[in-house]
Amino acid sequence: MIVIANSRTPEEQIQDIIQVIEREGLQVHVSRGEDRIVIGLIGSVEPRLADHLRQMNGVENVVKISKSYKLASRDFHPDNTVISVKGVQIGGGELVVMGGPCAVENAQQIDEIAGLVKAAGGQVLRGGAFKPRTGPYSFQGTGVEGLIMMAEAGHKHGLVTITEVMTPEYVDICAEYADILQVGTRNMQNFDLLRKLGETDKPVLLKRGFSATYDEFLNAAEYILAGGNPNVMLCERGIRTFESYTRNTLDLSAIPVLQNLSHLPVISDPSHGTGRRELVAPMTKASVAAGADGLIIEMHTDPDNSMTGDGVQSLFPDQFAELLQDLEKLAPLVGKSFATPKSPAGILS
Amino acid sequence: MIVIANSRTPEEQIQDIIQVIEREGLQVHVSRGEDRIVIGLIGSVEPRLADHLRQMNGVENVVKISKSYKLASRDFHPDNTVISVKGVQIGGGELVVMGGPCAVENAQQIDEIAGLVKAAGGQVLRGGAFKPRTGPYSFQGTGVEGLIMMAEAGHKHGLVTITEVMTPEYVDICAEYADILQVGTRNMQNFDLLRKLGETDKPVLLKRGFSATYDEFLNAAEYILAGGNPNVMLCERGIRTFESYTRNTLDLSAIPVLQNLSHLPVISDPSHGTGRRELVAPMTKASVAAGADGLIIEMHTDPDNSMTGDGVQSLFPDQFAELLQDLEKLAPLVGKSFATPKSPAGILS
Amino acid sequence: MIVIANSRTPEEQIQDIIQVIEREGLQVHVSRGEDRIVIGLIGSVEPRLADHLRQMNGVENVVKISKSYKLASRDFHPDNTVISVKGVQIGGGELVVMGGPCAVENAQQIDEIAGLVKAAGGQVLRGGAFKPRTGPYSFQGTGVEGLIMMAEAGHKHGLVTITEVMTPEYVDICAEYADILQVGTRNMQNFDLLRKLGETDKPVLLKRGFSATYDEFLNAAEYILAGGNPNVMLCERGIRTFESYTRNTLDLSAIPVLQNLSHLPVISDPSHGTGRRELVAPMTKASVAAGADGLIIEMHTDPDNSMTGDGVQSLFPDQFAELLQDLEKLAPLVGKSFATPKSPAGILS
Amino acid sequence: MIVIANSRTPEEQIQDIIQVIEREGLQVHVSRGEDRIVIGLIGSVEPRLADHLRQMNGVENVVKISKSYKLASRDFHPDNTVISVKGVQIGGGELVVMGGPCAVENAQQIDEIAGLVKAAGGQVLRGGAFKPRTGPYSFQGTGVEGLIMMAEAGHKHGLVTITEVMTPEYVDICAEYADILQVGTRNMQNFDLLRKLGETDKPVLLKRGFSATYDEFLNAAEYILAGGNPNVMLCERGIRTFESYTRNTLDLSAIPVLQNLSHLPVISDPSHGTGRRELVAPMTKASVAAGADGLIIEMHTDPDNSMTGDGVQSLFPDQFAELLQDLEKLAPLVGKSFATPKSPAGILS
Repeated sequence: MIVIANSRTPEEQIQDIIQVIEREGLQVHVSRGEDRIVIGLIGSVEPRLADHLRQMNGVENVVKISKSYKLASRDFHPDNTVISVKGVQIGGGELVVMGGPCAVENAQQIDEIAGLVKAAGGQVLRGGAFKPRTGPYSFQGTGVEGLIMMAEAGHKHGLVTITEVMTPEYVDICAEYADILQVGTRNMQNFDLLRKLGETDKPVLLKRGFSATYDEFLNAAEYILAGGNPNVMLCERGIRTFESYTRNTLDLSAIPVLQNLSHLPVISDPSHGTGRRELVAPMTKASVAAGADGLIIEMHTDPDNSMTGDGVQSLFPDQFAELLQDLEKLAPLVGKSFATPKSPAGILS
Repeated sequence: MIVIANSRTPEEQIQDIIQVIEREGLQVHVSRGEDRIVIGLIGSVEPRLADHLRQMNGVENVVKISKSYKLASRDFHPDNTVISVKGVQIGGGELVVMGGPCAVENAQQIDEIAGLVKAAGGQVLRGGAFKPRTGPYSFQGTGVEGLIMMAEAGHKHGLVTITEVMTPEYVDICAEYADILQVGTRNMQNFDLLRKLGETDKPVLLKRGFSATYDEFLNAAEYILAGGNPNVMLCERGIRTFESYTRNTLDLSAIPVLQNLSHLPVISDPSHGTGRRELVAPMTKASVAAGADGLIIEMHTDPDNSMTGDGVQSLFPDQFAELLQDLEKLAPLVGKSFATPKSPAGILS
Repeated sequence: MIVIANSRTPEEQIQDIIQVIEREGLQVHVSRGEDRIVIGLIGSVEPRLADHLRQMNGVENVVKISKSYKLASRDFHPDNTVISVKGVQIGGGELVVMGGPCAVENAQQIDEIAGLVKAAGGQVLRGGAFKPRTGPYSFQGTGVEGLIMMAEAGHKHGLVTITEVMTPEYVDICAEYADILQVGTRNMQNFDLLRKLGETDKPVLLKRGFSATYDEFLNAAEYILAGGNPNVMLCERGIRTFESYTRNTLDLSAIPVLQNLSHLPVISDPSHGTGRRELVAPMTKASVAAGADGLIIEMHTDPDNSMTGDGVQSLFPDQFAELLQDLEKLAPLVGKSFATPKSPAGILS
Repeated sequence: MIVIANSRTPEEQIQDIIQVIEREGLQVHVSRGEDRIVIGLIGSVEPRLADHLRQMNGVENVVKISKSYKLASRDFHPDNTVISVKGVQIGGGELVVMGGPCAVENAQQIDEIAGLVKAAGGQVLRGGAFKPRTGPYSFQGTGVEGLIMMAEAGHKHGLVTITEVMTPEYVDICAEYADILQVGTRNMQNFDLLRKLGETDKPVLLKRGFSATYDEFLNAAEYILAGGNPNVMLCERGIRTFESYTRNTLDLSAIPVLQNLSHLPVISDPSHGTGRRELVAPMTKASVAAGADGLIIEMHTDPDNSMTGDGVQSLFPDQFAELLQDLEKLAPLVGKSFATPKSPAGILS
């Protein structure tokens, strides 16, 4: 249930309302927007409490929310959440591009790619140090060493960094070295990991499970939010369907749907979403046109020899740079800003 | 198998090549592009014929094609197919918008909507006269009467018309009244209908079966092409997945994939692809950004009272007009042209 | 809506009820069971009519039915439908086995296989004369000639025959030569074909569309029933899922679900449902254990050289015979009878 | 790669072969069957080593295995794995029935249900203490207290116990109180959990991810096996498809497929696989007919008031008892033994 008040309601009245709710043993979540203040109630609400609240001073409306997720819903939090990481704003008017290799392979590789991401206009460096692999005999990542290499490359080139964390016990060390923590598609319902991330205040990029409904996706985000961490972004990365020509089916409807249902930023991953290099550029543009707040794109200097075998979905550096130039023109048409560096000498020289 | 010749190869040499192939009892399909001429062979080819062809004058290369569809493949026909209908070019540089109601309900309704489609910049009027319905007790369409109403509305407002044909025996009458014939998703593998359409030269919009793979889709197109009708356009309209929040999952990757595999124009249907009005605008823009050659969009003046109950996915006229204005800015960014009328008084007055 | 009367209600009272309903312009469907008589109403019912009927003599209850299909629902027709074809009872206590090749290839082939089906205990000979094929260049069947060959083989060996009809115009000729007409998975929503079959009284085996829900499946059956043909059996043949190891995913839950929702017999097709020979026997037994009324199984004397390339899912004759012997023991455990011939010398000699 | 030797090959020759392999830095896995000894190699094998092994004394054959999983494959381990837990044999000739509530709610509930499971002929008591829930506000289980209650009930009634473990740090405590540890469908690719389970020797029931392919499923099992724990059983529990009438689509083909590809026991879960009480009995029988080694079935004394809301898929005690009596007759037809107690007074009195 939510209680709606006008944004000009005196603070004492708001506090009175909150007190009444807390006295019933319920949790309260307050969202202050430009026009209205939304007070969300978490827990089982007696009808009599709703009646009482409806008559209190300052209350404009009391609305029942039937969704199982609360903090993640736009009903509870009408304005967009904007996550700020080292000066990069995610979920605001700026289009955010995250680029980099599937896996951090060595210091030189990640440094070189970081330079190319920066030169092309990307703000975030992606790279996996711990890799979730279908089978136990595949390359499992470079681990903490990889984390450190990426942190150094990010720092040197002035990029925010994002990396995947696979298990609760590695949350602390990943949080030490990376700016954003990513939860992979197979871990979307690893509830222990979600709870642990809820205890930090680190920004989290939560990937949609490859067969998760929107409702399950938002409930997974709710686990992190309910723990006290409001910095969650959602990432559509393709769902599993009968079509096997593409690695997954990138469900771009997810972008406007999630933005309608929730206030959290929505990122698109056209690399995993298609699994084919030639589809990354058109699906990146389509993602932006559908309203994505950001993109996470694989780029590699030598995709054919990538250590994960995922090179087939990685862009070459010049394709990446060219794509970002296209985004610069496209972003303003959907109300976003995005600028590539004026003299991108780094890429082309 | 295909034989590739230079476009400056003398005609006699081309004819010699064709003669050699036909003498083996194979069918020949010739595609003349700017740079090269592609001679496609349909049927089982003996290795010795390939060797012989490779040594003939004018032959640059002989390539084995492993795909089960031939005429639909870009290998056989490297240049884009452009379908011309009463001055509208589909598959060329122009973005084509088809708009209108799910079903033709009465003369006044279709006339009014036709005026609104035209005023907003649409080139094609859509409307169903024969409606495929899951159950036998639902409204089945206004039939031939509806066809006539739509033909009149199209003629009056200077719009090309498109309507669904559900069965071989109605192909002739539908072709008499409509400019483009549509094959619905449930009929994508109604092979008799496809064969009958192959015998006409009417443009056909073939909708992807809601669970058809790209390969099955192109093979269905091949049935029409193999019958002698080259005027086929492909339409992505959403696939069936586990997600039920949207009516279907609009698979926008299909646009670049089909354009890579085939030379046929690709149209997107964001109305059936999402089944929700609020998603039509973002998914239309995403379709254009992904490279769609055209769009087919439901619009209704009174969606809540539409006779098919599909109003929930129909745009209101002003939403339709506004969306097309956005497309005018978006189209040039993906190399397409699209213009709405300078004085769209008809819509707003 | 349905009106329920006791089975001992005098006939005049039943006729009075029917008269009242028909006077409102509604269709009536009467099902007389052992204990009760169910009078189904098709059309839009005014509340006042329900009230009136509730008070009439002989009426025990008036119940609203929310399902979109009526005649196919068990609400309308509480007892099982039993279809009788030349002495074979389908949907009663007898387990019915239909066996034979994917396609009728020549007279000798179908005659030989018919002998083996009979010897093993099968009651129905399956075989395709008209074959639906994904691409236009594949073998399309032996047509009417094939029909005749199969009719002769069936007659000679005392087997009921079943064959697929693909288009309305072939319904008559297929009905002339075959005892049961099959609608293929791609044609489940070919409404014109369904309507045409509704005009005959020929038994129809309707295959589930490979992505059809139970609701759509029963609505497709409703098209045939609404046309006046009550002799419809439903066939689960596997659905399309993400799993590609099997050709389809045989959804055996469909058997009890359809038997709960409907009174029509339910047949299982483990050959198409799995697409792999080694899975046919276990999935046949599982189908029987789940309650199937019958089975349709591919068997071929030379599967590796079958003309459709579907040999990989066909049993060898001795596997077929052995499987039927297992069914003889299994059937009684689920309340069915099935007997193989006492001296099946034909198979083994 | 595997090296095949005759089971009568002298042990020195086997040791020589092993030594040659280990000298190359590869891992060795030996499976001794009745007829042959299979020596599996894990790691990248040079062609020259294969040639050398082929010529060694005692070697019958050297075969390349292309599957990504090794220890889970039947190639590596031709005979069935039989897991023995307190006298219950899983994967041998005995059909094993695991029954119990979705969640352990209190001591009395689990004790009462344990008595009913035992009386009906079940060998294993199931019950969740830690519950994976889609949303954070749902009942999350009774935790360690629940574990203890179940252990006591199992001990009192002479039942083996199975419970779900959701996170690596709870493996030890769950292993202390339960006899078999279950990995839930959402955790099938929680690789850290799998690795931790690999370090124990506790029997593990691994549930198939609701959208996992067979290949991914067997690779997940491989994580546990590769850690050194050979006691893994596979559980088919339904996959996610477009059909929403059932909670999942129980994929019974998985049973024979997994038994062909692997030597591990295969258990079926018709409760989660259908999500509807009325389908549990037919799908249980179908599972046994398809060859399942065991079943895991939800049963509750008061399903309508179950704490997880999953009561809708739980059998009532008398349904459970009746079903097991049917299995007693069915099991021998597929080569299994299963016996219910001679005087099941406990249930009926």
